[in-house]
Order: sequence, then structure tokens, then C-alpha cells
Amino acid sequence: MVERIQKLLARVDRRDRWLVGVSGGRDSIALMELLVRAGFSDLVVVHVNHQLRGGESDSDARFVEELAGRCGIPFYQEAVDVKGRMEAEKKGIELVAREVRHEVYARALVAYEAKGVLLGHHADDQAETVLYNLLRGSNGLKGIRFENIVNIDGVSMRLVRPLLEIRRSEIDDYIARYEIEYREDASNAEAFTARNRIRHEVMPLLVDIMQREVVPSINAAAEVSREQGDFLAKELEMDQLLDPQGRIFLPAFKELDFVLQQSVIFHYLKRHGVPDLSRDLVARCVALKDTDVGAKCNLPGGRWMRRKEQRLFIQE
Amino acid sequence: MVERIQKLLARVDRRDRWLVGVSGGRDSIALMELLVRAGFSDLVVVHVNHQLRGGESDSDARFVEELAGRCGIPFYQEAVDVKGRMEAEKKGIELVAREVRHEVYARALVAYEAKGVLLGHHADDQAETVLYNLLRGSNGLKGIRFENIVNIDGVSMRLVRPLLEIRRSEIDDYIARYEIEYREDASNAEAFTARNRIRHEVMPLLVDIMQREVVPSINAAAEVSREQGDFLAKELEMDQLLDPQGRIFLPAFKELDFVLQQSVIFHYLKRHGVPDLSRDLVARCVALKDTDVGAKCNLPGGRWMRRKEQRLFIQE
Repeated sequence: MVERIQKLLARVDRRDRWLVGVSGGRDSIALMELLVRAGFSDLVVVHVNHQLRGGESDSDARFVEELAGRCGIPFYQEAVDVKGRMEAEKKGIELVAREVRHEVYARALVAYEAKGVLLGHHADDQAETVLYNLLRGSNGLKGIRFENIVNIDGVSMRLVRPLLEIRRSEIDDYIARYEIEYREDASNAEAFTARNRIRHEVMPLLVDIMQREVVPSINAAAEVSREQGDFLAKELEMDQLLDPQGRIFLPAFKELDFVLQQSVIFHYLKRHGVPDLSRDLVARCVALKDTDVGAKCNLPGGRWMRRKEQRLFIQE
Repeated sequence: MVERIQKLLARVDRRDRWLVGVSGGRDSIALMELLVRAGFSDLVVVHVNHQLRGGESDSDARFVEELAGRCGIPFYQEAVDVKGRMEAEKKGIELVAREVRHEVYARALVAYEAKGVLLGHHADDQAETVLYNLLRGSNGLKGIRFENIVNIDGVSMRLVRPLLEIRRSEIDDYIARYEIEYREDASNAEAFTARNRIRHEVMPLLVDIMQREVVPSINAAAEVSREQGDFLAKELEMDQLLDPQGRIFLPAFKELDFVLQQSVIFHYLKRHGVPDLSRDLVARCVALKDTDVGAKCNLPGGRWMRRKEQRLFIQE
């Protein structure tokens, strides 16, 4: 495992300053240990206290702080009010938890002038995400990327996941071999959600039925889907479709193959920060191109997609 | 439901002679009833007796024969030895059952000079197939097509699935409303396999976890994947890559994007009748392009893919 991670880590410069997101659970603790052993010498440990498990959450934070201290690594933490924000914004626990984590990382990124954030997602997380997104209605198979860039409050933040090709069982072996301490239940907010049932009920059932590992199959298929999507995105050269105001010019758009129309809309919405892009939402926006349907489509976050004067665009 | 099927059936001419595959189970019986009501006047009922359930299998055959007789529809049947062939050819039950069904259909197609075969696969079958293929390691998301053409012993046979967008629950409602008789356990060989556990254990668990229907989401994602794959296949214009002997010319092949290389190999293997194309097999054949790996790759059916003199080709 260590050799494979070394290979993946070759894509990030270990002399740069990197944040590492550490919940205190086995995955993020293993990541931190691996990074230290791999010679990353300018790390900052960032811990987000989701405050979802009372005193346990506070103990997790202290555990991570002490560990960072023993390793001589700077420690940054914030406690966030996930529950309050869920109620205030009428959003699900996973979405809010991810949003607040990203906001905390972005503040730490600015404060420490770091290169990006290293996260502990591994191959089993990937397969569970692909399956979860498939069940929610994703546009093709959608997983987590090895590396992506998110924009948070004007901060462009690089997220890198060095363990993404490593199985959970390999991490367990690593933790056991080096007798590494971690907090058993420390984890992000996912422990409370459908994601958790996919992990603990669906995945073992699928392995039992198929009589083989299913994580590699799911992840390989997602990789093919990702490559195809990237290829299409490259092909479409979206800028040729936009007018000087950045709106989609319908006469050009209508010339496209249906698959490319979906890709254009998907990337247009994504570029404008529309969250939770489902296949259904993309299809409804594509349908706006024809004049025999309504000229507006609601988007998450109170905006809408609109057709007017041969253009499609987002209206606030 | 009937209106949606009418729309789908607009793609096949009801004045033509069509075979309809009828196991006696609710899906194929519903299909047959729907076709009769929709004005298909030149049907031939084809029943394949898999002989997997002893006397019950024979009763299924008699039930379908009597029903066809009451409707004034010609009846064609064959009994096949699935178990014997599984042992002789060391193949799984599903593969053998599908092969023998297709062979029976092809003989009936020739005997009756029919246009093609109408089959009772529905939306739930589709989602289960997509999931099953994903778990086995499919090249992207692979489901059943509304229409495809298979070549059996030199016979080119069109298979059409008019119910593919209809949910199992809608078929149940239809069966109940018109008090249509069917054989409860009559079905193809799938009742004995992993497919059956996906249907009865996995799908209900996923609906419970997600608190929503998952069949439409899975099928929509598969549709996107299929459209992307078709688009790529169209783009690659494979013939430019083949030499006059029909072998893949490596210097041209190596110029392609990795995604297109996979598509080329996938379609090349498919065109040469290689069964059970997995993502892994495609990847191993693509890897042959580089001279630092072995120059042969085993294919199912005792053939292999070979690299020689800057060409990739299949050797018997």
C-alpha cells in the first residue's frame, strides 16, 4: 500500500505547505501518519468539530490536537453548528456538513497560505459515493475525484485525496501493523445518514451475492464514465456557444447532439455554482431550448434558468 | 401505461410478422395481451422450455400453448437442455439460458420468416441488469437496449423490448385490472441466480434506505452512459484504424485518447462476437498496444487477442 500511495503522492509536492483534514477517525489518522512518513514537512492539521455527538465530539477534537502537538504539526480547529444551519437553511445533514467543512478549510487555507487540502477518502468511500449518487439520480456515474478545485467565498481551493485508490481493509492493516491510535467513532456527519446504511448494509450484501469484491468493479466503471465525460467536455468547447454576455446562444446549441447538449448544460450550471446537479434538473434545463415548453426552470438556491430572445441563462 | 406503450410500439410496424417470447410469467403474458390489444395481427408465440423446474416447466409450456390457441396465435416451442450444456461448456446458468433462448428464437425467426422478436423486459429488469453489470465490472453502465440486433449462427435477429420503460408495478396493475392469468413461477433461468437476489433483497433495501424509487434514477444514469458511449463510438470512425485485413493498425491507434482506445477495443471485440465483455478484459487488450507487456491476451471462447507487426487482431 505504501508504495502505491508514494506513487499517487508524486502528483503533489511534499515541500509545499498542505492542510490535512483530520477528524480523528482511522482514515484521516492513517493519512496523517502516511504523510509524515512520506516526508511532508510543512503540514497543518485542520479539525472541524461538527458538534453532532456532544462530549464525544469535543474529545475527538482534543485527541487530534494532542496528536498534532506530539508530531510538531500546527493545529487549526473550528466548532460549527451543523444542526442550526440545517434548520435555518432547510438542507440535509450531509450537504451542510460538507459545506461547513469546506468553509473551515478555506479559512485555514487563507490563514496559513497553504497549497491545498489533503483528505482521507479511500476506494470504499468512492464506491459508496458512486452507488449513492447513482441511486439519487446522477448524470452518469459520479464519484469523488483524486483532485478537484472548489470555490468557497471567492477562495479557490485545491482538494487532493491521496488514499482514493486504497481499500479500507488496507488502511485497517496499516493501522494495526503500526499500532496507530484513533478515535473509533470519530467521523464526519455521514454516520447519521443513508450513506452509512449503504456502507454497512448494502456493500456487504452485494459482496455476499456476487461472491467477489464489488468496490473495484464499481470504481472502474466510474472511472470509465468520468473519462468519457471529460472527453465530451473537452470536445464541446463551450465558449463557442456563449454570447458576449456569457449566455447560451440557442441557434448554436440546438445544432448539437443531444449528449453534448446535456454536457453543455451540466457544465454551465456547474460553472455558475448550482449545487446538487441531478440528471433530471439537467434534462429540464435542456428542454427549455424548445419553445413549446415553459420558459423558466427553478434551480436550487432560489435562482432559475430562463429562455429569452434565443438565449438560455441563469437569473438570480 | 397503455398510452406509453402505444408510443413505444410506434417504432415497430404492427402489420409485420413478429415473434413474441412468452415464458408464461406475468411480464411476457402481459406483453402478449398488450400486443393483441394494440392490433398486432401476425404474431407467433415462441416458448423456450428450459427444463429447470421438472413437471412445472412442462405445465408452463402447456399453459402458454393453450393461451396462444385461444387467441388464435401460432405457437412454436422447443425444450432445451440447459443443465447439460452448462456442464459440457463450463458456463454459468444465465449465459447458457440466454444462448439457448436466442438459438430457439433464431430457428423460429427463419421458420416463420418473421421481422424480429418482441420480449417482455421492463424497467425493473433494466435497473437490475445495470446494477448487476456494474457489480461484475462493466465498461461504464450497461443495461438492456430497447432494440438490438444479435447474430446467431449466421442469422441476424432483431430483438425489441416494448415494455422497457414500464415499471413492474404497472404490469402488475394491468394484470390485476384485466384479471389476466399467468404462471406464478414461470420465468427464465434467472430465478436461480445472483440476479434474483438483487431483485428480491437489494432493490427493496435500496428503496428503504433512499426513501424513494431507485429504478428511475438507475435507468436514467444508464441512459446517459449509453448516449455517451454511442456518441464516442460514432466519433471514432473505427474503419480508419483498420488495415486492409481488418486488423487494428497500432501507430494510428496509439494516437487516440485513452477513452477512445477503450471504445475501439470494446467495439472491435464486440464486432468479432466476443461474449461477456468486461472492463477488465477491454483494459487488458488495450494494454497490448505497449511493447513492454505480453503480446497475447486470452479471450472467452478459446481465442486470443494478439499483437504482431504493429497490429492488434484476434487469433482463433
